[in-house]
Amino acid sequence: MKTILITAFEPFDGETLNPSWEAVRQLDRRELVGATVIARQLPCAFGQSLTVLQQTIESVQPVMVLAVGQAGGRAEVSVERIGINVDDARIADNCGQQPIDRPIAAEGPAAYFATLPIKAMVAAIREAGIPAAVSQTAGTYVCNHVMYGLLHYLHQHRPQVRGGFIHIPYLPEQAVAHPGQASMSADSVIRALEAALTAALSVEEDIRQTGGATH
Amino acid sequence: MKTILITAFEPFDGETLNPSWEAVRQLDRRELVGATVIARQLPCAFGQSLTVLQQTIESVQPVMVLAVGQAGGRAEVSVERIGINVDDARIADNCGQQPIDRPIAAEGPAAYFATLPIKAMVAAIREAGIPAAVSQTAGTYVCNHVMYGLLHYLHQHRPQVRGGFIHIPYLPEQAVAHPGQASMSADSVIRALEAALTAALSVEEDIRQTGGATH
Amino acid sequence: MKTILITAFEPFDGETLNPSWEAVRQLDRRELVGATVIARQLPCAFGQSLTVLQQTIESVQPVMVLAVGQAGGRAEVSVERIGINVDDARIADNCGQQPIDRPIAAEGPAAYFATLPIKAMVAAIREAGIPAAVSQTAGTYVCNHVMYGLLHYLHQHRPQVRGGFIHIPYLPEQAVAHPGQASMSADSVIRALEAALTAALSVEEDIRQTGGATH
Amino acid sequence: MKTILITAFEPFDGETLNPSWEAVRQLDRRELVGATVIARQLPCAFGQSLTVLQQTIESVQPVMVLAVGQAGGRAEVSVERIGINVDDARIADNCGQQPIDRPIAAEGPAAYFATLPIKAMVAAIREAGIPAAVSQTAGTYVCNHVMYGLLHYLHQHRPQVRGGFIHIPYLPEQAVAHPGQASMSADSVIRALEAALTAALSVEEDIRQTGGATH
Repeated sequence: MKTILITAFEPFDGETLNPSWEAVRQLDRRELVGATVIARQLPCAFGQSLTVLQQTIESVQPVMVLAVGQAGGRAEVSVERIGINVDDARIADNCGQQPIDRPIAAEGPAAYFATLPIKAMVAAIREAGIPAAVSQTAGTYVCNHVMYGLLHYLHQHRPQVRGGFIHIPYLPEQAVAHPGQASMSADSVIRALEAALTAALSVEEDIRQTGGATH
Repeated sequence: MKTILITAFEPFDGETLNPSWEAVRQLDRRELVGATVIARQLPCAFGQSLTVLQQTIESVQPVMVLAVGQAGGRAEVSVERIGINVDDARIADNCGQQPIDRPIAAEGPAAYFATLPIKAMVAAIREAGIPAAVSQTAGTYVCNHVMYGLLHYLHQHRPQVRGGFIHIPYLPEQAVAHPGQASMSADSVIRALEAALTAALSVEEDIRQTGGATH
Repeated sequence: MKTILITAFEPFDGETLNPSWEAVRQLDRRELVGATVIARQLPCAFGQSLTVLQQTIESVQPVMVLAVGQAGGRAEVSVERIGINVDDARIADNCGQQPIDRPIAAEGPAAYFATLPIKAMVAAIREAGIPAAVSQTAGTYVCNHVMYGLLHYLHQHRPQVRGGFIHIPYLPEQAVAHPGQASMSADSVIRALEAALTAALSVEEDIRQTGGATH
Repeated sequence: MKTILITAFEPFDGETLNPSWEAVRQLDRRELVGATVIARQLPCAFGQSLTVLQQTIESVQPVMVLAVGQAGGRAEVSVERIGINVDDARIADNCGQQPIDRPIAAEGPAAYFATLPIKAMVAAIREAGIPAAVSQTAGTYVCNHVMYGLLHYLHQHRPQVRGGFIHIPYLPEQAVAHPGQASMSADSVIRALEAALTAALSVEEDIRQTGGATH
């Protein structure tokens, strides 16, 4: 049976958990549309996260890769449109690195678009009753680092494998410590990821549906 | 066994459900700290909501009353501090009424503070892992109308019965139609209300903990 | 010629200026609708602010009092509807006091509505091209302390004098240190206050215009 | 004397003015650091905006191009980091066009980074007392269309000319019709643009200062 790889991150920025891993680990070994889901955790560190990701891809040989990360403060599940070739860290990563305006791949292009059907994924998550939207930026921290690095690696070494990134809100128990910030339960996130993966596995050509931003 | 009354609202403003009723109805007949919970739905209408509430209080004879309503856009469970003596409706209610700057009780005071231990309730909800905060305003629509009307009625007719109001976020399925707005799952809301009611039944004197706003 | 008193606050919470004083001091000695504006600064301290305010009222003998304060993070000029009888300080005031749930006036009512025509003032500010709205809460810090204390004092000692409170955003130079927060130029604030005072002096009965909040 | 070109947009989305043009037109013929500023308005239309821009570049022969647009709802001056190769319109442009997921340049790269010193520009604007930040996305509407199209054109035809994009908030008079939205006075925007252009003309290598986002 073919496999799909879904990754999440370890906690960072003083948090004791990362909602991405709380959700993603519950999808490990799940079967979806004739594929087996393999869930793996990545370190929240520039460089090392991509090393682990690439080793995992070589070991797991997935037909599709979806990376998931925390976007504290966002209210919706965000399906990322694009990863950009820059590290610019507002806070240090878990290894103490804080790069500023450093390319992820010295010879790489400025950006890669996700190769997953992002509009179909957003539509599927919303049909499951979970708020979702296309996001036009994955930031410039480790999440974007992994998104760009994943798409660069797949482009160079495994062009037939599709890849993308999803950002998720805080868990309610995290938002207790972040007054006024939105949150989403792990159950909702899991259902959203199932819907997104199912859509990504089922849809060849993305649907034509607006998901833009005026700015 | 003594009873406590918890109320919620019917849908309004074009919604097909009201998260307050989706959560509150699941608490009906629940036993908490030696009390039986009675859940009732109120119409979303100035005047009529208070008529139904007062009749229900007379029929149920509760030792405590908690009214619950939807605050679309808020990210946290809000325990309201105060109800004020004014109806000022930005949108029409379910009967088409849209009062502007009209007192709720012509001879009533400008406001009533909740007589439930709001700080202890917020603390209990947060301990249950759900984001919560004191709110300094319940607005000027039907929710505030019910909060003020409830406290005015209890003050005049049943001064030994404590009362208060809790605002809750949209459900995730509602937020699908409100891009960028926060939401909270019905399960989280139910756990929050259980924690709040349990605290309200257990605490005589409210705890001393900041819950203020600079503006 | 009759006088109107407008007050502002000294800086607090680590700021080096307070936008309310930057604007208000430029209105000192201005003539508006046949009245002379007297501008005074209040200390940002529970208790002391009201002592100074009351002494100033006795000395200045105004026909109207408008207090102005900073609401960092708000985007609009907020004309406050109501002051409530509680001090609940999230941060210490400039004298190190941080009261929690303490009444401002032990025997006072729960709240006072502003006695200025708040809807006419909002309309006048908006006609001047400055965003403005009615606010349903002045918080529970020194601003609300002054609003409630002012209205309580006028109610008891000078019932023919009308009073109210306006909250204003950060200045642009303050917002530089508060990423993502809204701001408003001193010029815009001054024009807003002139429009508000002019409306307050010209309008006897407030206009009938919605200014409510659903929550 | 050398010239620099600064562009703004005509009104769109039902507005009667565009804050970018209100500010930019006042910089026309201004001299800055030994250069003359030429200000031009672009149509808010996919395709046509780029045609006009390219003709203007050929006619004006600038050493630098800065395009400016409205970002209604943002509180700060945003210096854009990157333009991406996609049109995805949430609303129709002024010609009724509403493309979805259409590349701007069929053979173009996924994105271009601004070639202006964005960190130095943000620092200069903030030193002028105006809130500013790097933005990681210019959206997917006409603003991004112009930013990507500008950088693509310069890359292909005038690689020695530097280019970039700045998004600005609503004007106060616009925000009157957008309750709760931030605004910025035209004076502040003009001072911000002067500071940004001066920095861009003075700085060869951008400064090393964090301007990233975690998501």
